[in-house]
Amino acid sequence: MRIAIYGYGNLGRGVEAAVRQNDDMELVAVFTRRDPSTVKVQTEGVKVYNIADAAAHASEIDVLVLCGGSATDLPEQTPEMAKLFNVIDSFDTHARIPEHFANVDKAAKENGHIALISCGWDPGMFSLNRLYANAVLPQGNDYTFWGKGVSQGHSDAIRRVKGVKNGKQYTIPVDAALESVRNGENPELTTRQKHLRECFVVAEEGADLAAIEKEIKEMPNYFSDYDTTVHFISEEELQANHSGIPHGGFVFRTGSTGFNGENKHVIEYSLKLDSNPEFTSSVILAFARAINRLHNEGVNGCKTVFDIAPAYLSPLSGEELRAHML
Amino acid sequence: MRIAIYGYGNLGRGVEAAVRQNDDMELVAVFTRRDPSTVKVQTEGVKVYNIADAAAHASEIDVLVLCGGSATDLPEQTPEMAKLFNVIDSFDTHARIPEHFANVDKAAKENGHIALISCGWDPGMFSLNRLYANAVLPQGNDYTFWGKGVSQGHSDAIRRVKGVKNGKQYTIPVDAALESVRNGENPELTTRQKHLRECFVVAEEGADLAAIEKEIKEMPNYFSDYDTTVHFISEEELQANHSGIPHGGFVFRTGSTGFNGENKHVIEYSLKLDSNPEFTSSVILAFARAINRLHNEGVNGCKTVFDIAPAYLSPLSGEELRAHML
Repeated sequence: MRIAIYGYGNLGRGVEAAVRQNDDMELVAVFTRRDPSTVKVQTEGVKVYNIADAAAHASEIDVLVLCGGSATDLPEQTPEMAKLFNVIDSFDTHARIPEHFANVDKAAKENGHIALISCGWDPGMFSLNRLYANAVLPQGNDYTFWGKGVSQGHSDAIRRVKGVKNGKQYTIPVDAALESVRNGENPELTTRQKHLRECFVVAEEGADLAAIEKEIKEMPNYFSDYDTTVHFISEEELQANHSGIPHGGFVFRTGSTGFNGENKHVIEYSLKLDSNPEFTSSVILAFARAINRLHNEGVNGCKTVFDIAPAYLSPLSGEELRAHML
Repeated sequence: MRIAIYGYGNLGRGVEAAVRQNDDMELVAVFTRRDPSTVKVQTEGVKVYNIADAAAHASEIDVLVLCGGSATDLPEQTPEMAKLFNVIDSFDTHARIPEHFANVDKAAKENGHIALISCGWDPGMFSLNRLYANAVLPQGNDYTFWGKGVSQGHSDAIRRVKGVKNGKQYTIPVDAALESVRNGENPELTTRQKHLRECFVVAEEGADLAAIEKEIKEMPNYFSDYDTTVHFISEEELQANHSGIPHGGFVFRTGSTGFNGENKHVIEYSLKLDSNPEFTSSVILAFARAINRLHNEGVNGCKTVFDIAPAYLSPLSGEELRAHML
């Protein structure tokens, strides 16, 4: 399987690393908006091209992995590239998925390609777990918690505060809430009861720390609905202890069965990830394998993780899967 | 969807209860080896027939749920019934799955039916989680723990010991092992390090309790490789505190990503079930929905949970799933 990367940031580098773990895959090209001569990839022999030249390489690539952002990149790029390639993206603006799906589906179908959108862990593996658990336990409640992990959006928001030089924000599930859900208590939880926000802030010299802390804690949408703690640290501490991009979370469904709902069940799925972009990349490549196979079977159009039979994700044959993994 | 049950034990009753939670399903018949007049079902209007009369009702049934045991019932019944119906079973003798699959596949294909074998939670939901996690993290380790829950096989073994009137055995994962796996330590665990076995035994009057305890603890295959505790209790206590059939367990995959495997990830799936047969039944019905749809699309032959795209399990449409669950 010949893989190409479109956009060489954290996610693109994650895809590059993940290709090496999959014997049936080969990275053949990286497309960048930058001057290709300034982009150095880590895999020998892989060519770097400007995105303007993508069309010329269509016949060399089985699946193009779109590694741009959901806000402005993917809504444009995924439908556009679906005209030329089989594509996969990690579009994660939940509210705009139906619209994105329709655009990508049209482009893919008109050009005989397959596409898979919104791949990763949420949307992605978490979505799959929500679907399976809802199908199995029709009477029940869903809970999703995120973290402990870095929220890029909240870290960006901190860095926009006056007097802040640098900062990182961790989203942390509240232990008491997790335990209550895990015990089948079916709690109704407010935003504040579900997650904490912890900020590590590097202030500019002479900045008013009290004012920074107040502005962060009272910031609407981002922090005001949460219990937020702010720690002021040095740039060196930030680099030494907070340079990673960990994340993760929990998906629960709690439900009941029996003629009178007398038996309770708890389904829990959780992820603890040292690197959010590398794990996302790993999920993307498993689904890239699947759509490549489906395309070889003649399937076109836009898909999501819901549409892919799990066997397509594995390099093992049906016989091997039944013998060793069932 | 018209569902029928073949074998009315714990699992069959679980299916009967679960049908009521699924608005698109209706229970239309129960087949039993017993004299039908002696079997009283809980759903009004549902006919009970002897299994010998199954063929006469083929046209009334969309999916037949086989609720017999894996040792002797299902290897015979599933291929036989796949000649007449679309069928689903919970065949759980892992080592014999390839052979069972081949037999059922042949019968189903020759007669234009669809079948799904080995459905439930292990095999079933646990298998799915093993597959997804292996596809996503090719470099890593798998761990499966069972319990806390009742093992029918071990409970039966206790009851065969001389001087034992009744008994129940719980399989319990060892907390330290769970924690080590969860922390990404990738331990190599012996049988003894993974699970404990706890037995609640009702002895016959005047029985030699020390001899019973010794015989249980030293029983090969069942107990000798485990740390086993034996509690002697009264029949009343057993009925009051140990009449349920809880079960559950944990599936982990721990793996690494990055150019040098520098980032660690832990994927964990767990189930905590008050009723093993009712949860198994609930999984079966979700997959029964899926195979009925696939059969309506013209798909025949034997399938496993690996072959079913998740969207087929849900009563929601693709649009609804993308809008609300992705």
